[in-house]
Amino acid sequence: MIGIIMGSQSDLPIMEQAANFLKSLDIPYELTVVSAHRTPERMFEYAKTAKERGLKVIIAGAGGAAHLPGMVASCTTLPVIGVPILSSNSIDGWDSVLSILQMPGGIPVATVALNGALNAGILAAKILGSADSQISDKLQKYQDSLKDKVLGTVDDVKKLHPNRYDK
Amino acid sequence: MIGIIMGSQSDLPIMEQAANFLKSLDIPYELTVVSAHRTPERMFEYAKTAKERGLKVIIAGAGGAAHLPGMVASCTTLPVIGVPILSSNSIDGWDSVLSILQMPGGIPVATVALNGALNAGILAAKILGSADSQISDKLQKYQDSLKDKVLGTVDDVKKLHPNRYDK
Amino acid sequence: MIGIIMGSQSDLPIMEQAANFLKSLDIPYELTVVSAHRTPERMFEYAKTAKERGLKVIIAGAGGAAHLPGMVASCTTLPVIGVPILSSNSIDGWDSVLSILQMPGGIPVATVALNGALNAGILAAKILGSADSQISDKLQKYQDSLKDKVLGTVDDVKKLHPNRYDK
Amino acid sequence: MIGIIMGSQSDLPIMEQAANFLKSLDIPYELTVVSAHRTPERMFEYAKTAKERGLKVIIAGAGGAAHLPGMVASCTTLPVIGVPILSSNSIDGWDSVLSILQMPGGIPVATVALNGALNAGILAAKILGSADSQISDKLQKYQDSLKDKVLGTVDDVKKLHPNRYDK
Amino acid sequence: MIGIIMGSQSDLPIMEQAANFLKSLDIPYELTVVSAHRTPERMFEYAKTAKERGLKVIIAGAGGAAHLPGMVASCTTLPVIGVPILSSNSIDGWDSVLSILQMPGGIPVATVALNGALNAGILAAKILGSADSQISDKLQKYQDSLKDKVLGTVDDVKKLHPNRYDK
Amino acid sequence: MIGIIMGSQSDLPIMEQAANFLKSLDIPYELTVVSAHRTPERMFEYAKTAKERGLKVIIAGAGGAAHLPGMVASCTTLPVIGVPILSSNSIDGWDSVLSILQMPGGIPVATVALNGALNAGILAAKILGSADSQISDKLQKYQDSLKDKVLGTVDDVKKLHPNRYDK
Amino acid sequence: MIGIIMGSQSDLPIMEQAANFLKSLDIPYELTVVSAHRTPERMFEYAKTAKERGLKVIIAGAGGAAHLPGMVASCTTLPVIGVPILSSNSIDGWDSVLSILQMPGGIPVATVALNGALNAGILAAKILGSADSQISDKLQKYQDSLKDKVLGTVDDVKKLHPNRYDK
Amino acid sequence: MIGIIMGSQSDLPIMEQAANFLKSLDIPYELTVVSAHRTPERMFEYAKTAKERGLKVIIAGAGGAAHLPGMVASCTTLPVIGVPILSSNSIDGWDSVLSILQMPGGIPVATVALNGALNAGILAAKILGSADSQISDKLQKYQDSLKDKVLGTVDDVKKLHPNRYDK
Repeated sequence: MIGIIMGSQSDLPIMEQAANFLKSLDIPYELTVVSAHRTPERMFEYAKTAKERGLKVIIAGAGGAAHLPGMVASCTTLPVIGVPILSSNSIDGWDSVLSILQMPGGIPVATVALNGALNAGILAAKILGSADSQISDKLQKYQDSLKDKVLGTVDDVKKLHPNRYDK
Repeated sequence: MIGIIMGSQSDLPIMEQAANFLKSLDIPYELTVVSAHRTPERMFEYAKTAKERGLKVIIAGAGGAAHLPGMVASCTTLPVIGVPILSSNSIDGWDSVLSILQMPGGIPVATVALNGALNAGILAAKILGSADSQISDKLQKYQDSLKDKVLGTVDDVKKLHPNRYDK
Repeated sequence: MIGIIMGSQSDLPIMEQAANFLKSLDIPYELTVVSAHRTPERMFEYAKTAKERGLKVIIAGAGGAAHLPGMVASCTTLPVIGVPILSSNSIDGWDSVLSILQMPGGIPVATVALNGALNAGILAAKILGSADSQISDKLQKYQDSLKDKVLGTVDDVKKLHPNRYDK
Repeated sequence: MIGIIMGSQSDLPIMEQAANFLKSLDIPYELTVVSAHRTPERMFEYAKTAKERGLKVIIAGAGGAAHLPGMVASCTTLPVIGVPILSSNSIDGWDSVLSILQMPGGIPVATVALNGALNAGILAAKILGSADSQISDKLQKYQDSLKDKVLGTVDDVKKLHPNRYDK
Repeated sequence: MIGIIMGSQSDLPIMEQAANFLKSLDIPYELTVVSAHRTPERMFEYAKTAKERGLKVIIAGAGGAAHLPGMVASCTTLPVIGVPILSSNSIDGWDSVLSILQMPGGIPVATVALNGALNAGILAAKILGSADSQISDKLQKYQDSLKDKVLGTVDDVKKLHPNRYDK
Repeated sequence: MIGIIMGSQSDLPIMEQAANFLKSLDIPYELTVVSAHRTPERMFEYAKTAKERGLKVIIAGAGGAAHLPGMVASCTTLPVIGVPILSSNSIDGWDSVLSILQMPGGIPVATVALNGALNAGILAAKILGSADSQISDKLQKYQDSLKDKVLGTVDDVKKLHPNRYDK
Repeated sequence: MIGIIMGSQSDLPIMEQAANFLKSLDIPYELTVVSAHRTPERMFEYAKTAKERGLKVIIAGAGGAAHLPGMVASCTTLPVIGVPILSSNSIDGWDSVLSILQMPGGIPVATVALNGALNAGILAAKILGSADSQISDKLQKYQDSLKDKVLGTVDDVKKLHPNRYDK
Repeated sequence: MIGIIMGSQSDLPIMEQAANFLKSLDIPYELTVVSAHRTPERMFEYAKTAKERGLKVIIAGAGGAAHLPGMVASCTTLPVIGVPILSSNSIDGWDSVLSILQMPGGIPVATVALNGALNAGILAAKILGSADSQISDKLQKYQDSLKDKVLGTVDDVKKLHPNRYDK
């Protein structure tokens, strides 16, 4: 079971990409809104009970001064994946990226790219897959499908431009 | 009573500047280490009991992904002043500045300049002085003393370079 | 009484958020345009008479090379809250943020996030509330209402995604 | 078994912090130099054989245009942790941070802070601990020890400054 | 023969500018999609066989954490030109620029401006022209045509504004 | 006579603001396109003959790697005002700002804000006004008119919000 | 007469470079400390009386949130040259550069490079030289001397490396 | 024959790395100082006569507002390699990087990393090697030697840490 949380409902369109990926691999997840700044008790409770409730990984997305991933990480031994979100009034996303990435020694957050919720979902699956060969096999298939998609575009592009490299 | 907290003992040489300013104005303060990430419960307790313990303003300094000021602000109605600290392995201080400054709507942190603990102390005094004319008078004297110091350097510099402007 | 000033009428849609918050808490305010660069005398007069006219806090918003908050702060012992505004031809807001935040030792400006006028209003109320328990109680209610709003979105999101965490 | 690799021997003083943490938790690791740009075949082989050789997580550190973590991630289903290293002639570390963090959809790298190899080691342990309660217990003890260290500094600082908050 | 590759079909509208320039000078090219992260083997093969397949220069465009140009450069002695592409979810293009430009000593990539595929095409022609006076002559004509276009706009602008400088 | 030049016709909508200001003060100007990179000889001739043709100040605007202002400054003793222009494919204007501003010791360029052609026109007038009291008087009137415009907006805003400060 | 002012005595080692250049051209100057934030009245008086006291150009240097050049410019029709200074606790100089450069429409500051006080002195001389051919002749000699210095280094370098280009 | 030029003698310690690499491959070069801003005529002459003097590639290094590479490129059809140099008073190298990299369409500069003169030398050799198989063979040997050096460090590091990966 993967826990997916976000600081605000407005983050949902991005964060759903993590949920959808997990669904596509039949990995169960729960998803809810937990705000570090507006519901700090809820956040603490969520983080502290995460393990006993059966979560294996937590994915946390937030924008601006994004404290949710780091604060959750400080209250659990579970791996926490942080998704910086480009919110309105952000300074180009730098605020969110740096407040998630630059955690002090002792409390890591596994940070992915700006708005990178899809990759957060994949990373969560990779973490499960590290100890579960079924998931790991599915990931291999997913990675193969990425390759196939690229090769499909190779064919499309060949109709427009010469290409002598056919591998 | 002003509360001064910091994420790590290594922030003390900077944060003491706030304490020293308050001391110079006979404003009582307490000062301690509270880490958002390594002692989250302590931080929550500190913030939640701050008002009943008689604090009027909290000054919180932290470096890197600096969550302390914002998290404390989320647990109290007291004004919280944030001091971004340039820590080792910081990316030029941007991480600390942005994770303190860019708080979401609803939970403000009064942010001062990078390593600006002196200004945090002055700002805390200004907040008290807003309702206390004795402190406000002392601040006026302090502000006058800054002017006098500048005028002293005017005289020094005049020995080296021509200056026809004597006001 | 809170004074709200801004460098240009074009800042009004942002700066009104401070006024509206104060209004919602029945905190009196005055609001006007004061340009550091185009009406410097007006700015100086405003700042110097602010205290005797009964202001307790000044909120100053400006964009680009934003000198208004810092210059006002240099002429009063009142706490000054600075709101960096993302103006046209700004370099992503960095100019406004840095020219308000990075004040030299001696003259603090309590800086909030880019376009963070709502937070400036809340911070002004927190400053008053530091010495006025009625305002402080209202702030507690406001902070509780933020929590309730989040919990409302929790229910909305639950209709779309599984959530086993019901606190 | 955790694999630790780095782009250059000059990264060793940083990357050893990951190794030392794992050693302190009795988690086996291997550590070597693998350069994406100077030994691309070695890198590919390393990544492709990592899983069959029994690795569970790969930690990869690199500076400048840091392609090692992302390229390794593209050749394995194992979770890959990236450590941006501040190398000489770096532009303040931004090059390394961004070339590790901003991976395209499909190929995540779990990025930690600049020079954050200690956190990479902890994160690797958290990933193992997600499926291994012995490791998870050790991590809880480690996290508790961080708290104790902070409380020790609280006592030190109390000798220098008043502190009424004794929790 | 110039090889033009890009990490994703979505880069085609930009990268076609290189192809079109080469076409306009009758320089043969091939163009295809090669993804460093989704088709790493294809990328390696492409780079390693490039020279024997008769390529003289490789132009590689990619966005985000852009590893394609640098990885290709690590597997060939051919000159590689890197085109940073401003992709969606990029942090203003900085990620792509820095991950292409900041290559370590030993493995250069000839980097052009953000989205600068036209210049990549011209640079490839300049490289061929360095040993081929026919191409070099065509480049001189192209450079002259740029001048003529500017002089054409000089005439246009003169209709709107006084200009006494007629050279 | 003021010379206004720009690297490309696409800069005209911005650069016309300088021309229009000068026109409003009856200061003669000439305006044309001079590209440092596409018409280097034209640029050199323009700069070298500027003084003998009666120019007193040169205003040069350019975007991206903006070499025009600095190169013109290297070929004349006239003061050169540089206008960084936000061009397409610019990295947020930083390229243009830094390549105009950061001139080496010996060759200054008077740089104004991004897209700040109006200010370039005013600055050129200030330079003339430094030795010409008629122009200086006109500038005083212009500066007064800015004040009047602000005071006009003060009245507008007063209809929407309380304002007790009527100066 | 050129006026040289700076926000703090600590800026003197940089700002003296402007004075020394003017001295070398026998252009009279006055130099003093004027702090926008600590001596605002002094700054206003300085700016407002500058013209009647015979100044032709004002050079103003300041660090951090550097308001001095822009505020002085708002109170005079004289051209004002701004020198961003890299002060301690600056964020790499960006604060100073942006708060001087990004002035709003109507109030230009002629900004030079970070710590570029020498160039400020040269620019002031160029402004005077625009109406004074004696100064302009001296500037031409200075510019020629720069060329001669470069040619001297050409000879030095030739002793170490082959150079077939002897012009 | 490769031409190596730099804006200032102070760039020599960096730029010599290009010369030394070429020397190690027995590729003839010439090296001299050519300043875009202090010796513009010399620069123009150098660029315009480069081809007829037998140069095949020009390497140009400069710091700050670095116009040398781009201006040289505008006056020749030869490929020009730009080396951004981190000079004193630079803003962390951004000025030099952006003023070399962000060339407008039509005039490419092959930009290498900050202080990347070694890579500029290698790139120049790759350009020659594109049409000269002897040089190309030497480059292959050089690239192999890089690999050998890495493998040497693999053995060193193995003495300190366990490594089961022996390829």
